[in-house]
Amino acid sequence: MDAEIICIGSELLLGQTIDTNAAYISQKLAGIGINVFYHTTVGDNRVRLLTTFKRAVHRADIVITTGGLGPTVDDITLETITQALQKKLLLNGHVLRNIKAHFQSRHIPMPRSNLRQALIPEGAQTLKNSVGTAPGLIITHEKKILISLPGVPAEVKPMIEDDVLGYLKTRFPSNWLILSHKVKTTGLAESQVNQKVKDILQLKPPLTVGIYAHTQSVDLHVNAKAHTKQKAEKLIKPVINKIKSRLKEYIYAYDDDTMEEVVARALTKRKKSVSVAESCTGGLIGKRLTATSGSSKRFPLSIVAYSNTIKSCLLNIPAEILKKYGAVSKETSTLMANNIKQIANTDLGLAVTGIAGPTGATQEKPIGTVYIALSSARKTRCQKFHFHGDREAVRLRASQAALDMLRRYLT
Amino acid sequence: MDAEIICIGSELLLGQTIDTNAAYISQKLAGIGINVFYHTTVGDNRVRLLTTFKRAVHRADIVITTGGLGPTVDDITLETITQALQKKLLLNGHVLRNIKAHFQSRHIPMPRSNLRQALIPEGAQTLKNSVGTAPGLIITHEKKILISLPGVPAEVKPMIEDDVLGYLKTRFPSNWLILSHKVKTTGLAESQVNQKVKDILQLKPPLTVGIYAHTQSVDLHVNAKAHTKQKAEKLIKPVINKIKSRLKEYIYAYDDDTMEEVVARALTKRKKSVSVAESCTGGLIGKRLTATSGSSKRFPLSIVAYSNTIKSCLLNIPAEILKKYGAVSKETSTLMANNIKQIANTDLGLAVTGIAGPTGATQEKPIGTVYIALSSARKTRCQKFHFHGDREAVRLRASQAALDMLRRYLT
Repeated sequence: MDAEIICIGSELLLGQTIDTNAAYISQKLAGIGINVFYHTTVGDNRVRLLTTFKRAVHRADIVITTGGLGPTVDDITLETITQALQKKLLLNGHVLRNIKAHFQSRHIPMPRSNLRQALIPEGAQTLKNSVGTAPGLIITHEKKILISLPGVPAEVKPMIEDDVLGYLKTRFPSNWLILSHKVKTTGLAESQVNQKVKDILQLKPPLTVGIYAHTQSVDLHVNAKAHTKQKAEKLIKPVINKIKSRLKEYIYAYDDDTMEEVVARALTKRKKSVSVAESCTGGLIGKRLTATSGSSKRFPLSIVAYSNTIKSCLLNIPAEILKKYGAVSKETSTLMANNIKQIANTDLGLAVTGIAGPTGATQEKPIGTVYIALSSARKTRCQKFHFHGDREAVRLRASQAALDMLRRYLT
Repeated sequence: MDAEIICIGSELLLGQTIDTNAAYISQKLAGIGINVFYHTTVGDNRVRLLTTFKRAVHRADIVITTGGLGPTVDDITLETITQALQKKLLLNGHVLRNIKAHFQSRHIPMPRSNLRQALIPEGAQTLKNSVGTAPGLIITHEKKILISLPGVPAEVKPMIEDDVLGYLKTRFPSNWLILSHKVKTTGLAESQVNQKVKDILQLKPPLTVGIYAHTQSVDLHVNAKAHTKQKAEKLIKPVINKIKSRLKEYIYAYDDDTMEEVVARALTKRKKSVSVAESCTGGLIGKRLTATSGSSKRFPLSIVAYSNTIKSCLLNIPAEILKKYGAVSKETSTLMANNIKQIANTDLGLAVTGIAGPTGATQEKPIGTVYIALSSARKTRCQKFHFHGDREAVRLRASQAALDMLRRYLT
C-alpha cells in the first residue's frame, strides 16, 4: 500500500511553522508496512489544494491531510475534499455535541464560528479529538482511503495512535513492515564514526543504515524491511552487534533512551549519589540529572559557581589556585569535584569549568576549552576538551561529556 | 516570482529526519518578495524525483532543491536534474580543489567517492560550501532558475544568506515583500490571548496576524505585504501598538529576542545581581540566566537543592519549617529566596520549589504546584502556580515564570 501526506497551511509556506506531522505520520506508517512516497505542503488556497489532492488520490492508495480544519474561513480542507470527491457536507450532531462539551468543560461559550467544524462530508467516519475541537475523518472513496487530521501535532498524535493505525492495519494487513533501531554515540566526530562503520553504511535493502549527526550525539539508524517484526529484529541484530564491536564504549544509548535516563538508571543501580559543581554549563548538568523523577536521592546538590568569589567561598577553592592556574584549569576543576563531593556528602563529585564564549577566551585557552573532573572515593580523574561551536553548542557538548564521564565510570 | 522547494531524501519519507530547510528557505524568500506555493518531499528515487522536478520547473519560476548531493550512489539529485534539463555533468577543477582542501584541513585523505561531488552540470554557477563538501549550484534554464543545495541545515543557511538571496534579489528585483514581526507573551493561556486580540486576528491582507502557542510562550506573528520595507513597517506599527495596549505586561519580547536576553539586559541596565535557589527546575534557571556571555557579574551563584538535607544545611532552611509546611510551600520558597540572596551577597534572590511529577504529588499539592519567590532589598514576593503538562513542560513553564517575575521586577 502506498500513502501520501499533504500538509495544509499558508503559515507552513511562509516558514513560520516547521511541520513535524509528516515525519511523525510517515514513521508510524512505515512501522505497519505502508510506503510513503511524497509529502506535499500547500497553502490555504482552494485551486492549489484541489490539484494537489486530486493528484495524490490518483497516485496513492491512502491520502492523509493535516491542517485546515479550524473554525475560520481560511480553513478550507473539508470543503475542498468534498468538492473533489463530489460529496456533500452535512451537520453532524455527534461532532457538534463534542465541540460544545469541549467549550463547556472550559466554561467558555462556544463561538458561532466553531459550528463549521461540525460540517462533515457525508459517509465519513469521525475520529474524536481529545485535545481540540476539529474531529479527524476517515473517508472511503472508490477503493481509496482519505484521512483528514487537524494541524496541531498534539491533536494528530492521539488520533494516529488510537484510531488511524488500527484502522489501516485491519484494512490493509501488510505482509511487510519497516523496523528501525537507533544506536547513539558520543565522544566521536561524525567522520570518525563514519570511518569505523563505513562498510556497514553500504548495506543494501532489506537492511539500510544511516548516520545522523546532532550537536551532542552521532546516531546510527538501522532499518530492516521484513514480513514480520521478528524477522526484522533477526535481520537487525547482527548489524547492531557489529556496530557495538566497532564503537564499543562510545555507545551510550539505544532507540529512544537518553543520556539522562541511562545515567539516572546507572546511579540507582550502583546506589551512588552525585553532586555537581558547574561553571560554564550554568546549571545544565543539574537540569539534565533531574530530568527523570525521583532525583533527590541520587542527586542532592548542584552548585553553579560563576564568579571566582563564589568558587573561593562556597566551593573552598583557594584564591592562590585560582590566581596561579585560573578558574579554567585542571587544578581548579579537580578541586571543585573533590570539594562538592565533600560538601554534599555524596559518593561522586562532578565538576565542569570552561570557556563557552563568545567572550572570555585567551591565547592559551580558546573558546571551547573545558575541563571536566569526576571525583570518586578512590581517585579524581580530569579531562581537557576542546569543543567547537557557539556558546549554546559548547555548553551542550560539555554537559554531554560530563554526563558521559559519569556513565563510563558507573557502567 | 513564484518558487517551489523540493526536499530530497528517503530518510525524510521514513520520518527519521524532520525537514527544517523548507521552512527556513521559505521565510527568507518571503522577505525578498518571492512567493512559495509548494514544498514537496520525495525520496532518493530517480523516477519520482524526475517527475516532481519537471512539474516544479513547469509551474514555478524558481525551483530550489535540498539534499541528495552527497558522495554516495544514493545521491542522485544532480544526475536527475541534469537528465531533466538535457545537460551534461562535467568534472569541475575548482570544486575538486575545494573538496580536497576540506579533507586536507582535517588531515584526512579524500575518499575516492567524494570525486562524484565535483561532477557539476555544465554551465552551472557553484556556491562555496563553508561547512561540508557538496557545493551549491545555480543553473539557469529557459528563463527558469534552478538552485540545488545540500540537505544539512548548517550547510544550507550560509549558502542562502551569503549567495542565493543576493543572487535572487539582483535577478528579480521585487516590487513587494512580506515583513513579519513577533510579539511574545507569557503568563496567559492561548485562549486568553486569543480572547484579548480576537478582532486583530481577523485582519485581512495585506496585514495578517497569527497566534502560535509554545510550551512557555504564546506568540503573535504580524505579517505585512508591501512594496517596501518602510511601507510594511508602517502597516505593522499600529497593529503592534494595538496588541501592546491589550496584552501590556504579558509581553516579554519582540521578534528574535528571548526571555534570557531580556532579563540579562535588564540586570545589566539596572546594575542588579541575582542568585538562584532551584529545586524542581534542577538547574534550568541557572542555565537560562547564563545563556548569554559575561554572566558572572550579574549571576554569581545558583544552588540546586534537591534534598531536604541540603535545603537545611546549605540554604539554612530550618528543619521545622520543612516539616511544618513542606519543601513545596510559600514559607520554604520565601526563605530560600531570602537566604540565597544573603549567601551569595546579591541584590536579588530567586527561588523555585515545586512538584514537577510524575511522582511526588499529594492531594493538596498536585503535579504542577510550584512556588516562586523573589527577594529584593525591600521585600520578598511569592506566587503560587499550577502548571499543566508533563515533567519537562512543568519545569520549562516554572523557569519561564521565574524569569518573568525577575523581568517584571526589573522593568
